[in-house]
Amino acid sequence: MKIEKKTIPSTKERLLDAGLEMMHSFGYRATGIQGVLSSADVPKGSFYNYFKSKEDFGLEVLDRYIELQGPIGMKHMADLKRPPLKRLKGFFDEFIALYKINPSCGCLLGNFAQELSDEDPVFRKKLAGVFTAWIESVEDCLLEAQKNNELSKRQDPRKLAEFCISGWEGSLIQMKLQKSVEPLESFVDILFSTVLKK
Amino acid sequence: MKIEKKTIPSTKERLLDAGLEMMHSFGYRATGIQGVLSSADVPKGSFYNYFKSKEDFGLEVLDRYIELQGPIGMKHMADLKRPPLKRLKGFFDEFIALYKINPSCGCLLGNFAQELSDEDPVFRKKLAGVFTAWIESVEDCLLEAQKNNELSKRQDPRKLAEFCISGWEGSLIQMKLQKSVEPLESFVDILFSTVLKK
Repeated sequence: MKIEKKTIPSTKERLLDAGLEMMHSFGYRATGIQGVLSSADVPKGSFYNYFKSKEDFGLEVLDRYIELQGPIGMKHMADLKRPPLKRLKGFFDEFIALYKINPSCGCLLGNFAQELSDEDPVFRKKLAGVFTAWIESVEDCLLEAQKNNELSKRQDPRKLAEFCISGWEGSLIQMKLQKSVEPLESFVDILFSTVLKK
Repeated sequence: MKIEKKTIPSTKERLLDAGLEMMHSFGYRATGIQGVLSSADVPKGSFYNYFKSKEDFGLEVLDRYIELQGPIGMKHMADLKRPPLKRLKGFFDEFIALYKINPSCGCLLGNFAQELSDEDPVFRKKLAGVFTAWIESVEDCLLEAQKNNELSKRQDPRKLAEFCISGWEGSLIQMKLQKSVEPLESFVDILFSTVLKK
C-alpha cells in the first residue's frame, strides 16, 4: 500500500501564496503586510523572519507566480514536435481557457509592470528581465516559423514577438474591463490571420 | 492694445491637476488625499467642499485627463480631409512624439483600467464607456478605409479597432518598462504593414 505524502506548506509559502492572491487582485501597493499575515494566519511580527522588506516579499511573490504559470506556457512552447506557430497558438489558447474560468486579475507581470515600472527600479529591472525572456521564447518560435517558411520573413522576429506580447497584455486589460475573454480570442484570431502568416 | 486675461486656476482645478499628476505617476490607490491637498497647497479639511469622496475625485481626475488628451487625438481622428488610415497613423505618431519627451506614466485610461476594473464597478463602468467611445472612433475610421478600398474587408472593423487599442495599451506597458518609445514605434510599424492593409 502506498502512503501518500501530504505536503504541508511552510509558513513562508503560506505568506507568499496569500501575498500572490492579494497582489494579483488589488495590486502591490494596495496590499498591506498586516493583511497578508492575517490572511495567511501567521502571527504579527514574524514577517521579517522571512523577508527583508515588502519589496523583497513582492519580488518573491513574482517568482512564485512565474513558478506556477511558467510551466503552463512552457508545456506548449517547448513542445518541439508541433510546428512553431501551433505552439504559440496552443500557449494563448490554454491561457484563454484559464481566463475563461475567471476573467479578472489578468497577468501579474503586466499588472506589476504597469504599476511599478516608473517608481521602483528594482521591480522594473526584474520585470524587464522576465518580459525579455518571454519575448525571446516567442522570438525563437517565430524565427523557426520563418525558417520553415510558415511565416513571412518581412518582419523582424524580435519585434514581432514584442508585438505579440504587447497585444496580449493589452487585451488582458480589455478582458478585465469587459469581464470576458472575447478581447483575447479576438486578438489571437486577428494576430494569426493577419500578422503571423506567410 | 490687447490685454491678455490670465486665468487663475480655481481651488478645484488645482486639486484636480495635482491629483492627475499623482495618480498618473503612482496610481489611484497609492495617491492619498492629504498628499494631493499638500501638493496643491490647499488647506486640510476643504477637500470635501469640492468632492464627495476619493472615488468621486478620481472620476473627475479621469475627466480632466480626457479633457486634456482628447483634443490631441481628435485633431487627427476628425481631420476628414485626410484618408482614414492616415488619420489613425497621425493619432499614434503624435502620441509617440509626446511620449518621447517622457516615456513614463503611460496612459491614465490603461493604468486605471488595469488597477481598478476588478475592484471598483463605478470606475469599471466609466472606463468601459471611455474605451468603447475610443474603439468606436477607430472603428468608424477603419470602416471608412474598408469602404474606400484602402483596407481589406476580411476583418470585422470593430474587432480590428479593439485590436489596435489593445496593442497600443500593451505597448505602453513595454514603454514604461523599457523607458523608450521603441515598443510603440515598432507596434505602429507592424500594425500598419501587416494588419491595416489591403
